Amino acid sequence: MAIKSKNIQAIRHPVTDQERALRQGHQGGVLWLTGLPGAGKSTLAFALERRLFDAGKQVYVMDGDNLRHGLNSDLGFSQEDRTENIRRVGEVAALSAGAGIIAITAFISPYRVDRAGARRAAGDKFHEIHLSATLKVCEERDPKGHYKKARSGEIPEFTGVSAPYEIPEKPELEINTGTLSEEECLSIMEDYVEANFG
Amino acid sequence: MAIKSKNIQAIRHPVTDQERALRQGHQGGVLWLTGLPGAGKSTLAFALERRLFDAGKQVYVMDGDNLRHGLNSDLGFSQEDRTENIRRVGEVAALSAGAGIIAITAFISPYRVDRAGARRAAGDKFHEIHLSATLKVCEERDPKGHYKKARSGEIPEFTGVSAPYEIPEKPELEINTGTLSEEECLSIMEDYVEANFG
Repeated sequence: MAIKSKNIQAIRHPVTDQERALRQGHQGGVLWLTGLPGAGKSTLAFALERRLFDAGKQVYVMDGDNLRHGLNSDLGFSQEDRTENIRRVGEVAALSAGAGIIAITAFISPYRVDRAGARRAAGDKFHEIHLSATLKVCEERDPKGHYKKARSGEIPEFTGVSAPYEIPEKPELEINTGTLSEEECLSIMEDYVEANFG
Repeated sequence: MAIKSKNIQAIRHPVTDQERALRQGHQGGVLWLTGLPGAGKSTLAFALERRLFDAGKQVYVMDGDNLRHGLNSDLGFSQEDRTENIRRVGEVAALSAGAGIIAITAFISPYRVDRAGARRAAGDKFHEIHLSATLKVCEERDPKGHYKKARSGEIPEFTGVSAPYEIPEKPELEINTGTLSEEECLSIMEDYVEANFG
């Protein structure tokens, strides 16, 4: 997106990323969870927040249900608004990463181009994690009853049913949340953080 | 602003504010600097970030020049866009405060109603700091040459010249950046944080 405001320079923060990382023992970054509805994004995000906090990390979850009360309360569910929703989440996650936090985001984020925007915002601090439970598994779980409503037409443009989910081509991590237990998924993610945020 | 998306519940974070505060030795919160152009907002914000970081705090500056490259890159300088700019900053600052950070924001934010929105977003974590250098002082300083351009009409609707600055009625702190030195201003703000974020 073009920057509308001209003649503006990004100011360097006096406190550097390196200083922040040294202080807290890890880098800031974005763990971008993506996957079908029902793949376990929010559940794992909040459980991982608990895990990483208990392991001494600075960590914070941003998820759709949360952000739509505040920053994105002006957005609905049109195609345009969904894209803007993901754009803002990507920017806020990047800001948080710059502040030294491990930001865990839990959004379906079905489009590659939107996820690519979030990756651009955070640069090399971006870690895409594909929770790859299959449509069959997610629809059988249907924790919120949304698949049923989507099949009946009550919910239009529902990802996986009547709107596409574009599978990540090169995610930093893929976790099959359809076959692994929650505990196994959490361990994989925690190990990933230990290995990559040092 | 009305919430467009219905049937959404704010999820409770498993990690509480209290746990975060206990871990890092201080509460999260928002230090909302407001004042005329040239009052010293960005200068003091970044210098305070340095100070507070060196004192062991989790702290991060958000200022206009920075955010307009990312989150708010779709916004210009129309009245509507300025209001939306401040709304988003208020929401992101509130989120950061929820993550345990001391978010320092440096925006003119000339309208009471906009600042009230930012206060609502952060609740009792919001601390309004009025940098109250007078128009005369700020215009004499004119660090960016903007007042001169505003007087000549080259910049329209410039706060203090051709657009209003609504003075905070009950800021948590007022600092006359026209008469105090930078060092004095920083000491006042640091003392305020030590007294109120414990």
